[in-house]
Amino acid sequence: MEATKRSRTRQVFCGGVAIGGDAPVTVQSMTTTKTEDAAATLEQIARLADAGCEIIRCAIPTAQALDGFEAICASSPLPVVADIHFDHKLAIEAARRGAAALRINPGNVGSFDRVDAIIDAAKAAGIPIRIGVNAGSLDKQVEAMDGLDLSEKLVLSCESFVEHFRERGFEDIVLSAKAHDVVTTLATYRSLSERMPDLPLHVGVTEAGTLRQGTVKNACGVGILLEEGIGNTMRLSLTADPVEEVKVAWDLLSSLGMRRRTPELVSCPTCGRCQVDMIPIADEVSRRLESIAAPISVAVMGCVVNGPGEARSADIGLASGRGEAVLFAHGEIIRKVPEDAMVDELMAEIESRFC
Amino acid sequence: MEATKRSRTRQVFCGGVAIGGDAPVTVQSMTTTKTEDAAATLEQIARLADAGCEIIRCAIPTAQALDGFEAICASSPLPVVADIHFDHKLAIEAARRGAAALRINPGNVGSFDRVDAIIDAAKAAGIPIRIGVNAGSLDKQVEAMDGLDLSEKLVLSCESFVEHFRERGFEDIVLSAKAHDVVTTLATYRSLSERMPDLPLHVGVTEAGTLRQGTVKNACGVGILLEEGIGNTMRLSLTADPVEEVKVAWDLLSSLGMRRRTPELVSCPTCGRCQVDMIPIADEVSRRLESIAAPISVAVMGCVVNGPGEARSADIGLASGRGEAVLFAHGEIIRKVPEDAMVDELMAEIESRFC
Repeated sequence: MEATKRSRTRQVFCGGVAIGGDAPVTVQSMTTTKTEDAAATLEQIARLADAGCEIIRCAIPTAQALDGFEAICASSPLPVVADIHFDHKLAIEAARRGAAALRINPGNVGSFDRVDAIIDAAKAAGIPIRIGVNAGSLDKQVEAMDGLDLSEKLVLSCESFVEHFRERGFEDIVLSAKAHDVVTTLATYRSLSERMPDLPLHVGVTEAGTLRQGTVKNACGVGILLEEGIGNTMRLSLTADPVEEVKVAWDLLSSLGMRRRTPELVSCPTCGRCQVDMIPIADEVSRRLESIAAPISVAVMGCVVNGPGEARSADIGLASGRGEAVLFAHGEIIRKVPEDAMVDELMAEIESRFC
Repeated sequence: MEATKRSRTRQVFCGGVAIGGDAPVTVQSMTTTKTEDAAATLEQIARLADAGCEIIRCAIPTAQALDGFEAICASSPLPVVADIHFDHKLAIEAARRGAAALRINPGNVGSFDRVDAIIDAAKAAGIPIRIGVNAGSLDKQVEAMDGLDLSEKLVLSCESFVEHFRERGFEDIVLSAKAHDVVTTLATYRSLSERMPDLPLHVGVTEAGTLRQGTVKNACGVGILLEEGIGNTMRLSLTADPVEEVKVAWDLLSSLGMRRRTPELVSCPTCGRCQVDMIPIADEVSRRLESIAAPISVAVMGCVVNGPGEARSADIGLASGRGEAVLFAHGEIIRKVPEDAMVDELMAEIESRFC
C-alpha cells in the first residue's frame, strides 16, 4: 500500500540519482560554506558523501558565486543542485555551468516571464527543477485569498506553479512545500500527494530549530509522511553541521525499515538496576560502529533483566553483568569476555563476521 | 477522530496524574541513580520535574532498595512508580511503602499465583499496575506458538495477561509492549489499540540507542502513534541523562501541536547565503529560552531570503542581515537593533511581552 503511493509518481533524475517512481527515498543536504570558496565546499561535500548524502545543494546568492559553483559541479562526487532565489539570470547561468538540477521558488522570481526563461534553460540543459514553496514565496494570487490556512495556500500555490510549468511543456518537476511546523507540514504534503499523485515530493521540515528540536520535528514530521508512503527524497534542515542532517536522515530511514546503511545499535536505557555505566560504553560502540558499513543489528545491554532476552534478537550482542560480559551472535552465546575488553572483543567479532 | 481514539480508554490515576480518557498525554522518565541512595535519586527527580517530567519510575532490584524507595516516595514531587522484575515480594512491599503504581512484567514474575499476590497488594493500596511485555517477558504459552512474529506475540501476551487481571477483578491497568524497533512498535500498538480499545497505553521505543538514534526512533515511532491518536502516556528511552528523555518528549508533544510547555524556536538552517553565523546565535537563544515558560513561537533567521517571510508567522522574531537585525512581533516590525545586542534585545522583548 505505502510503496504504491510513493512509487506511482513519475521518476526524474538528478545527475545519476533517481527521484520518484520505484527509486528508494534519497538523502539530501545543503552546504553551509561559501559557494565562492570551491575548495572548502568540496571538502564539506566529501564529508557529507561519506556520511551518506546522495544529492547536495549549494546556494548561489550572487553572480560572484557562479565560478565557484562551476568548479564544485566539475569535481563533486554528488550531483549538485543550484539553489536560486530572486534572480532568474543566476538560475540560467547555473544550468549552463553544470547544475544537476535547479531549485527555485517561483513565487520569489518576480514574473512568469522570468520563470519561463529558467524553464527553458533547464530544458536545454536536460535537468529537472524543484519547485519550492514556503510561507515567504506563495503564489501572489493565492496569498491574497481569504479564508485559507497556510497549508491550503501552500498547496494551491504549488498547483498554480505546476500548471504553469506543464503549460510550458516541462514535466521534470520535484515539488516541495515546507513549513516550520509539523502539523502544517503533514496537512500540506498529504494534500499534495492526494492532488498531484504523479509528482515526486521532496520532504522536510524547514527552519526546524537547533539540533534536538530539529531532530524531533523532522523525525516525527517526515517519519509520519514516509510511513504513509509520501515523500521521494528528503532534506532534514537542522541548525547544525550538515553532516548531522544526513545522519538523522539515515537513522530515520533505518528506523522505518526502509533503507539501512550502517549498523543499528540497540542499547538499553540505563536504570537503577544497571551494573555498569552504560552511557560511555554505548557511546564508544556507537562511535566505533560508524566505520562499519554492514547493515547489522548490534545490542549493548547493561542489565540482566532485559539483556539476555533482547540481545538474542540482534545479529550480535553484548550483555554485561558485574565485571564480565557475554558475547552473543544470532541467539548463541559465543563466549564470556572480561569487562575491560568487551568493546574490543565485540568489535573484533563484528569485523571477523560481517566485514 | 484522533482524540476519540485516545479518549475512549478508561482513566486511571498514578498519584494525582490521570492517564487515559480525556487526560492529556503525560511525560514519564526513569531514574538512573541507585534507588538505595534516596538523596541522589530525589535530586535527579527534582531536575526531571523541572524539565517537565510528570511521573517518575524507580527500579527496585533488591530488598535493600526498599528503604530508599520509601524515602523517595515520601518526598518526591512526582508520583513514583515501582519498577519490579522477577520478585513478587518486592512489588508487594513497594505497594505498602508508598508506590503510586507498580510496573511489572507478568511474564517474568514466575507464576500466576505470584502475579495474583501482586494484584491483591495493588488493590489493597488502591494503585494501578502497568503490565509490561517485551521480547524477553512474553507469556510462556504464546512464546511457544509457531508462525507468529514478535508483534503478534507481544499483543497475544498482553491479551492473556489482561484477561488474567480482569478475572481477578482488577481493572486499573496501563499496558505497554515495547520493542526496540519502530516497525514492530507500530504494528504492536496499533493492534493493542484496536483489540483492547478501553485500556490506556504507555508508549515508547525501548533500548533505542544513543542520543541521536534514540531521539530519531522515539520521535518517529511514538510520533506516528500519537498522531494516530494512540498512546496516553510515554517514556522515551534514551541511553543518556534522563532529563534528555523528558526534553525530547516535550519537543514531540509540541511538534504535534498536542501540548506545549516552553517557547518554540524557529531557526533557519544555515546555508551559503547566510550573512551571520547562525548556529551559535540559535544555540544561545535556545539556551536562554529554556528559562521562559510561555508557549510562544520565536523565530531566529539569518537570511534575507526566508527571514522576513517566515519570521512574520512567529509571535516574535529576529531577522538578521549584515551588521544589524530587525525585531518582529506578530507580523509588525518593532525596531532595528545592532547585531551585537540582538539576542539581548530579543530576550528583553520576550520578557516584557510574554512573561
